[in-house]
Amino acid sequence: MDTRTGLPVVGMVGAGQLARMTHQAAISLGQSLRVLAATPDDGAALVAADVRLGDHTDLDALRTFAKGCDVVTFDHEHVPGEHIRALAAEGVTVYPSADALYYTQNKRAMRERLGEMGIPIPRWRPVTSRADIDGDVVVKAVSGGYDGRGVWFDPTDVDTGRELIVEERIPIRRELAALVARSPFGQVAAYPVVETVQQGGICVEVLAPAPGLPEDVAVEAQQLAIRLATELGVVGLLAVELFDTPDGLRVNELAMRPHNSGHWTIEGARTSQFEQHLRAVLDYPMGDTGLTAPAVAMANVLGGQPGGPSIDERLHHLFAHDPGVKVHLYGKQVRPGRKIGHVTALGEDMDQVRSRAVHAARMLREGPG
Amino acid sequence: MDTRTGLPVVGMVGAGQLARMTHQAAISLGQSLRVLAATPDDGAALVAADVRLGDHTDLDALRTFAKGCDVVTFDHEHVPGEHIRALAAEGVTVYPSADALYYTQNKRAMRERLGEMGIPIPRWRPVTSRADIDGDVVVKAVSGGYDGRGVWFDPTDVDTGRELIVEERIPIRRELAALVARSPFGQVAAYPVVETVQQGGICVEVLAPAPGLPEDVAVEAQQLAIRLATELGVVGLLAVELFDTPDGLRVNELAMRPHNSGHWTIEGARTSQFEQHLRAVLDYPMGDTGLTAPAVAMANVLGGQPGGPSIDERLHHLFAHDPGVKVHLYGKQVRPGRKIGHVTALGEDMDQVRSRAVHAARMLREGPG
Repeated sequence: MDTRTGLPVVGMVGAGQLARMTHQAAISLGQSLRVLAATPDDGAALVAADVRLGDHTDLDALRTFAKGCDVVTFDHEHVPGEHIRALAAEGVTVYPSADALYYTQNKRAMRERLGEMGIPIPRWRPVTSRADIDGDVVVKAVSGGYDGRGVWFDPTDVDTGRELIVEERIPIRRELAALVARSPFGQVAAYPVVETVQQGGICVEVLAPAPGLPEDVAVEAQQLAIRLATELGVVGLLAVELFDTPDGLRVNELAMRPHNSGHWTIEGARTSQFEQHLRAVLDYPMGDTGLTAPAVAMANVLGGQPGGPSIDERLHHLFAHDPGVKVHLYGKQVRPGRKIGHVTALGEDMDQVRSRAVHAARMLREGPG
Repeated sequence: MDTRTGLPVVGMVGAGQLARMTHQAAISLGQSLRVLAATPDDGAALVAADVRLGDHTDLDALRTFAKGCDVVTFDHEHVPGEHIRALAAEGVTVYPSADALYYTQNKRAMRERLGEMGIPIPRWRPVTSRADIDGDVVVKAVSGGYDGRGVWFDPTDVDTGRELIVEERIPIRRELAALVARSPFGQVAAYPVVETVQQGGICVEVLAPAPGLPEDVAVEAQQLAIRLATELGVVGLLAVELFDTPDGLRVNELAMRPHNSGHWTIEGARTSQFEQHLRAVLDYPMGDTGLTAPAVAMANVLGGQPGGPSIDERLHHLFAHDPGVKVHLYGKQVRPGRKIGHVTALGEDMDQVRSRAVHAARMLREGPG
């Protein structure tokens, strides 16, 4: 507890944009998020009052960080499970637990578990050498993947020094995501199911609610996420990435933290995913997940080629062009392809808000030209 | 400019809840608000990364603070005008200017100027002694008033050591507020006119839009605020507190900063007043001021009597009771009557959202009992 305010201290390991936006939400709840940053220039470290520098793979750094926190949580999946278990054994409250988080850290274990649970996933098998890779498959590293890294569509690119699986390539209509939050008490709240639009393995747009999704499929996706959160013992957010296929839904990947597919909730849902994650790990009752507008579109802002107007000038142009679009910049240096922010548009008509969001993201990436 | 991000640095003198909520808005714009705090426990100092300690009446402290800021602005009206002029003369961009801010610092000058402009205000006159005070009047200190301080309804309470005015007490139906933002470029954006509900000189509720306000009166209030912002040369926000009387609108007071009557805009308007203030002082194009729901109600959370459940427990009870209400806590120690936060409810029906907001504020003040 923060003795100055009488309110809890949440520590988040990792200080990227997810921690940055969680800090914004924490402020409303009377808190100040403590972040463990790798460098003072990390997105959240630039804006938070309570920044500790340290390596998230160093148990002593984690121990020091956890001291005085009511709960420790994560903005990524890269903290070794044995460190999380050590902290928990020493009395630190850590959510999600090492046992739950394991299913985001090990793609093989996740698939084995989901298979046992009878949850539909693409067919897969472990491979040990390049010779094992054949057929129309995608190759995935069992651990360490992120934003398209650790996933190969061409077997000749594969890094065979890592533990790998192959997964059948299935015909997909589109990708969806189901986001839920679960508290230690066991309350689960589900957000409307969204469509995620990917380019080169990176999410570029999110449409909420997923346009034209039949109600029964939306409910199926939410129930699937609720069941996973409950049976895997997740506390905090669980994002379930799904393939919408002619044969039904298939689970692609899991994340247990605020997720890119939920950034639209900042303005588009009554409770943002960042506030919801805090409420969940603090065992507060969950917030209303309802939409604030009939159609919400989020587009990621990826860094463009060097040159042209500054990001500040681009912002001027964008605000002159669309006074209603909401901008979130992460405080990052612009590098080609790097996620440096996102934009959200809200309204009555999905085509319209989508085109506004995409145009806004392009103006921030390329300038007004 | 912040060389790490390529985005501007805004410095805000004062680190109370207005600076705290402005910092939240700054984060979305890729910035980190620099605040000048009186103590490390000020509401904004608890959550911002770039906190300088210093006295806002000390010119050298202001000079040091301003170094490296693209623009300096305020979360209160208490910086001496001569200091603001000195900074401006030394090349610091300060908004609002000393000339504009003067009309919030001196109630006599404000009334003289508004009288010259032909803007309707209650009849008033300066007084120099208690013997001068007669009739059905309210007595106001010319400078230094805030949240009901410096205003006396009983002449025997008056602090006659200060420069005073008396103002006729006029029959009022209710109080209104018109909030606008103006950029150096001259763009002005007006928010919907709201009703403010006062108790003991302190704003306790804000209803947006003002229920049952005829369209022509709303437009008159907005035009009046736009005219004042333009003619007084305001840059940033201008809040115009108004009396709705049987004889028409009368201006009560002015503020040139984010204002309690605009807290509802965080969720209730497409652009919050805090983002709008930043956009205005940075000469960005103004954001959309449209409502996000047909009815928005804000209630201030005032500190209650000591004892009973902790603020954290109260928050649990409130969230269980109303999953949709939005809470903003300012990181302040609870003291009876002190504004420690606010709550906002949004929906279709004003009576309903008002009752939710009032009930939520009471639960945070008194506990669930």
